[in-house]
Amino acid sequence: MPSGPVEELNPPRRTLLGPGPSDVDPRVLRAMSAPILGYLDPEFIKIMDGVAQMLREVFGTEESFTLPVSGTGSAGMEAALANLLEPGDVAVVVENGFFGLRLEEIASRQGATVVPVPVEWGRPADPEAVEAVLKQQQKVKLLAAVHAETSTGVLQPLDGLSKLAHDHDALFLVDAVTSLGGSPVDFDDVDIDFAYSATQKCLGAPPGMSPVAVSPRGLDAIKGRTEKARSWYLDLGLLLQYWAGGTRVYHHTAPMSMIYALREALRLVLQEGLENRFARHRRNGRALRAGLSALGLELLVPEEYCTYQLTSVHVPEGVDDAGLRRRLLTEYNIEIGGGLGQFASKMWRIGLMGESSTSSNVLILLSSLEALLPQFGYEVATGAGVAAASQSLASE
Amino acid sequence: MPSGPVEELNPPRRTLLGPGPSDVDPRVLRAMSAPILGYLDPEFIKIMDGVAQMLREVFGTEESFTLPVSGTGSAGMEAALANLLEPGDVAVVVENGFFGLRLEEIASRQGATVVPVPVEWGRPADPEAVEAVLKQQQKVKLLAAVHAETSTGVLQPLDGLSKLAHDHDALFLVDAVTSLGGSPVDFDDVDIDFAYSATQKCLGAPPGMSPVAVSPRGLDAIKGRTEKARSWYLDLGLLLQYWAGGTRVYHHTAPMSMIYALREALRLVLQEGLENRFARHRRNGRALRAGLSALGLELLVPEEYCTYQLTSVHVPEGVDDAGLRRRLLTEYNIEIGGGLGQFASKMWRIGLMGESSTSSNVLILLSSLEALLPQFGYEVATGAGVAAASQSLASE
Repeated sequence: MPSGPVEELNPPRRTLLGPGPSDVDPRVLRAMSAPILGYLDPEFIKIMDGVAQMLREVFGTEESFTLPVSGTGSAGMEAALANLLEPGDVAVVVENGFFGLRLEEIASRQGATVVPVPVEWGRPADPEAVEAVLKQQQKVKLLAAVHAETSTGVLQPLDGLSKLAHDHDALFLVDAVTSLGGSPVDFDDVDIDFAYSATQKCLGAPPGMSPVAVSPRGLDAIKGRTEKARSWYLDLGLLLQYWAGGTRVYHHTAPMSMIYALREALRLVLQEGLENRFARHRRNGRALRAGLSALGLELLVPEEYCTYQLTSVHVPEGVDDAGLRRRLLTEYNIEIGGGLGQFASKMWRIGLMGESSTSSNVLILLSSLEALLPQFGYEVATGAGVAAASQSLASE
Repeated sequence: MPSGPVEELNPPRRTLLGPGPSDVDPRVLRAMSAPILGYLDPEFIKIMDGVAQMLREVFGTEESFTLPVSGTGSAGMEAALANLLEPGDVAVVVENGFFGLRLEEIASRQGATVVPVPVEWGRPADPEAVEAVLKQQQKVKLLAAVHAETSTGVLQPLDGLSKLAHDHDALFLVDAVTSLGGSPVDFDDVDIDFAYSATQKCLGAPPGMSPVAVSPRGLDAIKGRTEKARSWYLDLGLLLQYWAGGTRVYHHTAPMSMIYALREALRLVLQEGLENRFARHRRNGRALRAGLSALGLELLVPEEYCTYQLTSVHVPEGVDDAGLRRRLLTEYNIEIGGGLGQFASKMWRIGLMGESSTSSNVLILLSSLEALLPQFGYEVATGAGVAAASQSLASE
């Protein structure tokens, strides 16, 4: 039997500039110490309603159903695919990064036929290529795309894809994990049928929930299923009876503390204002890009289709990827991310999401890199990165 | 667009004596305000290892793999069935309550053939009846039973069922949602292959995670699958590469704050000591049963096979179930549960789980019932319930 006391919890305080989780405002952390309520307590139902209402506002939708799924972002992805797809359905997936591949993997586990649209990682999809694939299929149930690819930092334009999906009588599914709260999602205007996100990126809450939005058209598809979804836990027909029914029907015990955190985080998002929040992400992301470029580092994604909340930069030739990240973590308490999939050990992923998106974080990271890079054999002009970033910040 | 500010979070402080969530120690709530870490931060890996170690101790296992699934108790149930069952497999399910039915529902969504063993709700299964069903099947993959049925309060003896399962070359799956931390589960001694639980019952943490334990035999079955599990989010082969691999492989972003809470709750469980904790649940459960009986109320489950952490009592003839529970909640801030399934509006379910299992909670509830019941047309001898409970408490 394992034994011995486990010591007191005492995690170090990091500056989280990786691909998520991002920093959390103390008000959001504090919200989790609020008293637990029963899952059908009328006071808890009011709290759920407030969360659903604020989610509608943040997704940009009036008529859709919103709720946070009780799991992390990938649970939202699985909820989307498990509810929208039935065995034999064709799902066309834009595959321009690691999370496009995950969409394919989960779709195939629902028994669907997956047709990928391969796109070079670090570039957005060409609508014509997507259209060509759609035209090859007799009947497409679903077109799926990742809005902000966390593995590359590409912001995929959605309007054209939405139109293509609907022209082919398919549903349009959007991964908004890294975009929601940092870039406009515009659920209604874009005419999305299902979007899912995560709490720990640009919304500024701890990881643990996946906000989803479902259009009336998406809900019709779910209600019209011939087979039950392969997941009971994520069955939206049942979840909506708990989240949106006149009489609330118990499904599973909701994670109150996480819902409190999400609620507080959404309040802070709306207090800041979505436009201000997007502008803050843009301003700090631009400054980071300017600083990295001034250090001679090569950015993966051109600015015209980059997402400002996540910046991928090539690890310079000869620099020890893991070694540098380890020293950044242990000596500077700063976390940045490594590459995923085909970019493993070739790319750094720097997140400026939610609370982590501050000008001081940009400057701290750049000055830390200026100090560390020469120790890994990559010479830089000390101060060049910080100067370029400061200039960029001052110009907006 | 919905609008208007959402007010500050301010949930009322309830005494949670329902079927879970139960009260949470302030130390556990406070743990959730600890700083968030990256999902591969070496300091976070240490925290995960501490949680897995303490879970082994609480489940009573040396060699099995333990981890908390990132979802509530039903996610643990789905993880068990999605990983152990393949399409066409036969699952025999002991059906003596609401959660037995849920096991059947989820098993069938994995494509399995479900063979129920119907048992009167409020009674444990007769091993002979289970054996008869097992014998009828050519090949059984899995025998599943609920240890402490939250819908009735029956504690199902496990030894006989485990032997039957293995005699028939089947895996033995146990729902330990309401038992873990309140009654001995004895994973190794009983020879269980898979058990899942929840954080918000007798472990004393908020809802949001489902601790699971998998025996080496269970893991072999998972590794020997011919088809991938229908759930990617709950795929234990992938989850174990993150929780137990030499090199930790990213699967999904772990919900740090919930893991902090679980870790702190497990520390408190082990500080109290499992035997002391079981004795506390027994002592307070007995006192409640004595008090309810003294008020003339009829208990569903005889003491010989009751679980002390959840007591079901018949709503007296003519008493308005929902009305009484509402007044208990709004006037006394006490939550108790209503009946589920065939017991809807016929039964009250009173939980004394984890932090909620205190002698003062027993006395407060009984005195509140003594005050309220006459107002619903059910006369009681004032003080009789409290007196009987006090006597029971004093006798141990």
